[in-house]
Amino acid sequence: MKIFTIFVALCPLLFSLSLANHDSFNSHVLPRPLILEYPNGNGGVESDEQLLELQCNSWRFAVEANNVNPWTTIPAECADYVKNYLMGRPYRMDLDQVSNEASAFAKSVHLGDDGKDVWVFDIDETLISNLPYYADHGYGLEVFDHMEFDKWVEKGMAPAIEPSLKLYEEVLALGFKVFLLTGRSEQHRNITVQNLMNVGFKNWDKLILRAADDHGKTAIVYKSKKRDEIVKEGYRIVGNSGDQWSDLLGSSMSMRSFKVPNPMYYIP
Amino acid sequence: MKIFTIFVALCPLLFSLSLANHDSFNSHVLPRPLILEYPNGNGGVESDEQLLELQCNSWRFAVEANNVNPWTTIPAECADYVKNYLMGRPYRMDLDQVSNEASAFAKSVHLGDDGKDVWVFDIDETLISNLPYYADHGYGLEVFDHMEFDKWVEKGMAPAIEPSLKLYEEVLALGFKVFLLTGRSEQHRNITVQNLMNVGFKNWDKLILRAADDHGKTAIVYKSKKRDEIVKEGYRIVGNSGDQWSDLLGSSMSMRSFKVPNPMYYIP
Repeated sequence: MKIFTIFVALCPLLFSLSLANHDSFNSHVLPRPLILEYPNGNGGVESDEQLLELQCNSWRFAVEANNVNPWTTIPAECADYVKNYLMGRPYRMDLDQVSNEASAFAKSVHLGDDGKDVWVFDIDETLISNLPYYADHGYGLEVFDHMEFDKWVEKGMAPAIEPSLKLYEEVLALGFKVFLLTGRSEQHRNITVQNLMNVGFKNWDKLILRAADDHGKTAIVYKSKKRDEIVKEGYRIVGNSGDQWSDLLGSSMSMRSFKVPNPMYYIP
Repeated sequence: MKIFTIFVALCPLLFSLSLANHDSFNSHVLPRPLILEYPNGNGGVESDEQLLELQCNSWRFAVEANNVNPWTTIPAECADYVKNYLMGRPYRMDLDQVSNEASAFAKSVHLGDDGKDVWVFDIDETLISNLPYYADHGYGLEVFDHMEFDKWVEKGMAPAIEPSLKLYEEVLALGFKVFLLTGRSEQHRNITVQNLMNVGFKNWDKLILRAADDHGKTAIVYKSKKRDEIVKEGYRIVGNSGDQWSDLLGSSMSMRSFKVPNPMYYIP
């Protein structure tokens, strides 16, 4: 009886969705704010500002779940939301959360005694942060400028993402081999090594960068090919940490993958 | 110079992460709230209540990105958060968002003229909602009770998730074949058909339920096997909508998959 009562109570809510949100949020176009007065879960009514916060949070969820794909720049009306997320506590919480989940998984794995268990890490926005660059370029609001970004990379000054450094050191201590698989090009090998070492990353076993014949491939194709090679060499890819789904999906996928948050840009 | 200034400004933030969030949020154990006063992105300081909201939002992100895996029940301290999410506007926004993204993708696909382009839908929490049941069982706070849930299923009263019905009708109109692939068992075929039809779902091409020999398989293994069979029959799985990552990952994956939000339960 109680179930039925709740069912009846919920029905109008569920059935009204398509009407209530007819002007629903589109990540590519800037919607005008919904002006319907719609009670929220706390029984209140959202202001336009709260509603925008909810819309941008919804967009970010969709990005992290790989539902928005592809996208070029963040929605203009979410510029403040993305900045506040990145510069405030939520980003740090999310980084901690993914590091802790990966760590718990790494500790649960029974490693072989042949030294063939591998953890793959992406580099940018996974181990080291380009937030200083993006802070100067609208946190994803500006269209990506390869030349400008390369200048930043060549400074070698990207700071460590500390929760990822913690995970990195943990998986090494557990006996995993660490392979770094990055979309950066071979011509940036030296500065990348220098940057990584300067901020505390050491003892990786392979650093795989894009060679000349990998340029022009999408990240998902290039990284899948490199993982295929790793597997052919007899390694087991147990864990994979990356901020892009193109780091994680494709062929020779890891046993478990960990999506590091990144609402700033999308790489196919 | 500007980049450098921002870099210097950001460094302490980034480097302090592992210290600031040392007692960081763990989805499996109930953490005591962080008591550090840590400025948020708006320059304010969060109350314990705001902090809990952030922690639960972070947990939900990690769930939607498949970083928390496996999990049995929602974190107890997030019970109100999950309830408010589901009963308020955010869940509806997220459902609309995923439906709209899937719809945009579906429209972008050039279909073959052989009738072999397929969209796969999961059923529970994807096409129809068991929220009335879960509202009576703590919104995921109670350990799953198979017998009790079966009684609910056998009522055949799960309402449609309207944004999914909209997508369902759109993909049919575009010329996709619709295959329903569910973890429900064959013994629930009749009531499932009746429930789906009653709330507006029609004209699917296959309804695949767990046969006797599929019981005991995880969802990811069972659904992969069924997708393998579909592909062997010459179909192209273009889209796949599901609320569990075990609906979407594995073998014979779709060209694009769409993760429908579900913070109530996890199926391996």
